[in-house]
Amino acid sequence: MNDRIHNFSAGPSALPTAVMQEMQEDLLSYRGSGMSVMEMSHRGDLFMGIIDEARTRIKRLYGLSDAYEVLFVHGGASLQFAMVPMNFIGEGQTAEYIETGTWSTKAIAEARIQNKGVRVAASSGDQDFTCIPEVKGLSAEAPFVHITTNNTVRGTQWHDLPDTGGVPLIADMSSDILSRPLDTRPFGMIYGGAQKNMGPSGTAVVILRKDMVEKIPHNLPTMLSYRTYVEKESMFNTPATFPIYAISLVTKWLEETVGGLAAMEAVNTRKAEALYALMDEDDFYCGTAAKESRSLMNATFRLRNRELEPLFIEKSLECGLAGLKGHKSVGGIRASIYNAVSEASVEALCTFMDDFRRTNR
Amino acid sequence: MNDRIHNFSAGPSALPTAVMQEMQEDLLSYRGSGMSVMEMSHRGDLFMGIIDEARTRIKRLYGLSDAYEVLFVHGGASLQFAMVPMNFIGEGQTAEYIETGTWSTKAIAEARIQNKGVRVAASSGDQDFTCIPEVKGLSAEAPFVHITTNNTVRGTQWHDLPDTGGVPLIADMSSDILSRPLDTRPFGMIYGGAQKNMGPSGTAVVILRKDMVEKIPHNLPTMLSYRTYVEKESMFNTPATFPIYAISLVTKWLEETVGGLAAMEAVNTRKAEALYALMDEDDFYCGTAAKESRSLMNATFRLRNRELEPLFIEKSLECGLAGLKGHKSVGGIRASIYNAVSEASVEALCTFMDDFRRTNR
Repeated sequence: MNDRIHNFSAGPSALPTAVMQEMQEDLLSYRGSGMSVMEMSHRGDLFMGIIDEARTRIKRLYGLSDAYEVLFVHGGASLQFAMVPMNFIGEGQTAEYIETGTWSTKAIAEARIQNKGVRVAASSGDQDFTCIPEVKGLSAEAPFVHITTNNTVRGTQWHDLPDTGGVPLIADMSSDILSRPLDTRPFGMIYGGAQKNMGPSGTAVVILRKDMVEKIPHNLPTMLSYRTYVEKESMFNTPATFPIYAISLVTKWLEETVGGLAAMEAVNTRKAEALYALMDEDDFYCGTAAKESRSLMNATFRLRNRELEPLFIEKSLECGLAGLKGHKSVGGIRASIYNAVSEASVEALCTFMDDFRRTNR
Repeated sequence: MNDRIHNFSAGPSALPTAVMQEMQEDLLSYRGSGMSVMEMSHRGDLFMGIIDEARTRIKRLYGLSDAYEVLFVHGGASLQFAMVPMNFIGEGQTAEYIETGTWSTKAIAEARIQNKGVRVAASSGDQDFTCIPEVKGLSAEAPFVHITTNNTVRGTQWHDLPDTGGVPLIADMSSDILSRPLDTRPFGMIYGGAQKNMGPSGTAVVILRKDMVEKIPHNLPTMLSYRTYVEKESMFNTPATFPIYAISLVTKWLEETVGGLAAMEAVNTRKAEALYALMDEDDFYCGTAAKESRSLMNATFRLRNRELEPLFIEKSLECGLAGLKGHKSVGGIRASIYNAVSEASVEALCTFMDDFRRTNR
């Protein structure tokens, strides 16, 4: 597809072109049914097959045991920020949150709005969230420890999970879900908005360990209780059918074209290393994250001469590279290189960065 | 499109074929941008244009004054069932709900789960919800009166709004939103899941009168407060971008191809009258809703000989007519004839029903 742009958007973001082509082909008549996936009953056999495929492929990709449920929940990650404390911080309990920037801060705020017991057990706020903090002294009594595995704004990522001594980890993985293999056993819950590594926005994927369900109070509004999604298999009401369809295709692509999460991680590592290596050649570009905390998903950097940044963005667009502007809260440049951003796109970016440096040194 | 089926699904349901074709054409590169609407930042100019178009067209179709905001909220109508009492029933207040079947009953249940003051001011439950009940004695002190304008399961619809004496009406219009012109002035809020008359599932449209915002408590979880959606123009987090794009195209189709809501109502009336007229010719088919409460959106009926119903469904599918099975809670037949179901589709259904009657009399 010659007319496809190199898309480095932080989210919603690039989807695999092959997936987009399959969606396009079937858009008016899914598998000869005479209707689009958008137009069919969520309780019919066709869509039940689709949601089941999405669920099964996610389970298989992560090697999840039967102890886990895969749910499709409304509202993106931001609604989960509110639902997690509502469902899992009981009377008198204090949950542990690790603060690593914008999204973790929002998660903490939503627990506090509900007057729930919350302790910020570690924070890299004093280092401007440019690294993942050291974690020690976690309480063994906490109902969970909450982390944000990848931080899109500052370009940091957890590379080793904190030892919680058996307390369930709950992780917002919106921006690195399905990007690498994972030992899922420490996790009570994993959640993520679909719109970075999985599909279009409109649904969150929630991976929930079944023993967590027992802790959910019985008096929550139906749509705000994870128990509802478990008991009704994410079909208490109409789920976001088209985004779930896209997830089924993206996870199929991950399994059948990429070859699973280890293979995906290898590709993601090559992409990130190419970019960081170029950045580290001299000080024309300056990475903003501490090296040991650098994200494989969002490479954030400044130009030594910040006045050149608007020109960098302008020229990159002219070269067919989109979405490189940094988050408005921090400025600078951000290249989001999620699963579906190809090595060819990263190569094009590296070539552009190299040229831009030579021209503007 | 010869291979498109006649789709009578109750929701998700048929979308205009012309809209589907435009989506298909632009799926990999929206207006030459080199990316799909699914892949672009919700804060970029392109998507901002799309959401603004959807908002503006809804406003224009209903002739809404500046006193109203159009919002795109997560979670479908079912989450609004919980958010409405959370936002609008204050301490010591009692809201009035009119009970007209399945969906209104769920709305009432969600208010009760929160221990909110709720009174069922009228119900057609003693008539098996086959009609819209007479409403009198509404309290002038209530924060709102809640109705469900169209009832998909029993095939009933409000044709005259109740006189609330100035108390704001809040209406779940999931299944007849944008199907006819409306005097919106009595409404404090109108809401509806997208997946019947507007687009694919994954978002709800909420039309909120601005004076309602002042009543919203300030301590709600951010994503559960309508104030957030007003203040952040439905962009506190990533909205369901692709469903909103579809809504922008469907409302464009309503304005530019159909010619507005009065024209749409004329078409919808012709479709419903054709079906009901055929049904009323003799007692082979028996409409289940009281005549004065019949829905223009969902025509529900039984066969006099109920044993023939499975054969009716089987044969209809063979004739390219899909989605005619009644809701599982009541059985029978249901033809959902929302905006995008064409007169040609209804004609095909009438021909089939006539033939089936002749063959199986």
